Parts: sequence; structure tokens; C-alpha cells
Amino acid sequence: MPHITLPPGHSPGISGLLMYRPETAGPLRELVQVLLLGPNSLTPAEREIIAASVSWWNGCHFCHTSHAAAACAHLGRGPELIDAIKAGLPDEPLSPKLRALLHIAHLTQQGGRQVTDEAVAAARAAGATDTEVHDTVLIAAAFCMFNRYVDGLNTWAWPEKERFMEIGRKMAKGYMEPYVPSAP
Amino acid sequence: MPHITLPPGHSPGISGLLMYRPETAGPLRELVQVLLLGPNSLTPAEREIIAASVSWWNGCHFCHTSHAAAACAHLGRGPELIDAIKAGLPDEPLSPKLRALLHIAHLTQQGGRQVTDEAVAAARAAGATDTEVHDTVLIAAAFCMFNRYVDGLNTWAWPEKERFMEIGRKMAKGYMEPYVPSAP
Repeated sequence: MPHITLPPGHSPGISGLLMYRPETAGPLRELVQVLLLGPNSLTPAEREIIAASVSWWNGCHFCHTSHAAAACAHLGRGPELIDAIKAGLPDEPLSPKLRALLHIAHLTQQGGRQVTDEAVAAARAAGATDTEVHDTVLIAAAFCMFNRYVDGLNTWAWPEKERFMEIGRKMAKGYMEPYVPSAP
Repeated sequence: MPHITLPPGHSPGISGLLMYRPETAGPLRELVQVLLLGPNSLTPAEREIIAASVSWWNGCHFCHTSHAAAACAHLGRGPELIDAIKAGLPDEPLSPKLRALLHIAHLTQQGGRQVTDEAVAAARAAGATDTEVHDTVLIAAAFCMFNRYVDGLNTWAWPEKERFMEIGRKMAKGYMEPYVPSAP
């Protein structure tokens, strides 16, 4: 049960919180919109994989599964990709650049001071630009916020990953509109 | 030295990053403006103390010292308050409500799942509203982002707390404008 009173039938995860407090919802929506869907040399799917991986490392079921489902929507994949992200994507043909950026994201998740010169140099050697390093650190940092917001207020989420495919399709189209699940 | 190339003479901490990437700076500025200075039953000084405390627990010198200095500006206090925040404010006349909210912020900083029913019940018993619990969790979560952003890109900051009193006065007036330090 959420730690604060949300209306009966409220949407899961962050969706219910964004409706509860529109004053903070505006900048939070704009931030995730520009970070994950704004013009960028990293594809939306690559950025959703970073977001979903950080959320998994933080143990946030709602954020992990919904952003992994958004990556599925971008790539035209089924929900098996959600479990692959949990496992670190060992069998996916990720670019060496994305693997190096995921390592930077993992260090950022552990703490800002954990990001090493070596990790940044490795990403650069794999072709990452300054903006890509910047955005990777900020995406990872932002999900350390979103994950704590969602779990710190003890919001609800469906247990089954398949149930997230609908919200993933919606997220792949944009983050500015409220999400209300379709009837089960 | 920062992990990405910022212009010579760039501003310290997050200030230089906000100038580097205006696309993400907009929502980040709006978020901190509404969280720390928007209309609220918690005073700006109380919210800055939560932000500065979380930043100290995360080991982020720039965010801790600048937000503690903003609290000094709101309260008309000298830089000794910065060290008092580091120490957990044992000798300050904080309300029981703010102490209970600081405990929720500390749990949020450790991870969203760490926030307990008991900690929320204690805040409520001390008079906290749902919105105050919500905003405390979101302020703490947001500084888990800002701290990782600032330190994950290895930005610079002055070592001496006294040097932060100027940026603290600027922050107390608003977060929407870029900060450029005055000549030393």
C-alpha cells in the first residue's frame, strides 16, 4: 500500500504519483522526455536499456520492467528482452560503445565518485562522445531518483512482465501524457 | 578534472554542466525550483536542509555545501551552520516533524525500499502531511540524482565552505538563472 493516500484506482508506479502532484510532474516528465526520446546520437532503445538496467540494479521492479518494455516497443521485441536486461544482455549484439556506457551507468548507480577515468577512457576508445558520456551519467543519475521516488512511496505494480507491454508501447511514443491502464 | 570537456573558466559543480547541456538544464532547473522554493508548508530553509543533508550522506561536497549555504542565506546564518548540517544538527532547534522527515530522507537516500511504514507513521505523528512526506521523498530522491550527476562527471568545487556563501545567496533567490562566480 502506498505510504501516502492516492485516489482509488490510481495508476501504477510513478504514473499515480505524477497525477498526485502536478507541480513536480511537469519537470519530471520533461526531463525523461528529453533524456530518453530527445534528439541524440544514442537511439531511444539504447537509452531505455540504460534506464532499465539502472532500475534493475536499484531493485525497482516498476521502473525496470516498464523501461525494458519501452525498449521492446522500440525494437519490436517480445517480453523475453526484459529478462535479458536483468541478466546484463550477454547474448544481445550490443555495440562495444553501449557496453562501455552501461559500465559507466553501473558505476554512477553505485555513486558519483565511483565513475573512474578508466571507465570514461574505455567508452571514448569505443567511440563515445562527450555528450554520450554526459547523457549516460545523467540518465543513470535520473533513474537513481525515479527509482527512489517510486519505491520510497511504496507504489504498486503488476508482478507479471507481460502486463507492462502496454505501458512500454505508450512510453515509446512519449512521456508527456498521463498513463491510465486499459481494463484488464 | 571533469570527465568531459567544459569551456575554460566554467562554473563549479552542476553550474558548468547546466551551461554545457541546456536541453536537460531546463527541466532540472524547474524541478529544483519547485521542490525547494515553490509554495509549500515546509519552509525553503527546511527543504534546503533536507537537500544538503542528503548530499552530505551521498558524499557530494559541492551539492552539500552549496545547499547548506542556501539554508544559511534563508536563515540569516553564518557558515557554521554548514558544519552543523554535516553533524546532523544535534544542537539546532529543529521541529520534531523536520527531524522525522530527515529520517525519511536518510532512508530514501539509502534506497527506496528502505523507507518503512514506521518511519512514515512517526512523521505523521509529528504532524507531517501526505504532501510533506511526498516532497521529502522526492527531494531526497532528486538529490541522489544531482549528487551523482555532479560527482559522476567529476566537476570541480572550492574546498572552503566560506567560498560557497555567495552561491548560497544566489540559490536562495531562485534556480532559473545560470551562476557565474564573482572574481575572487
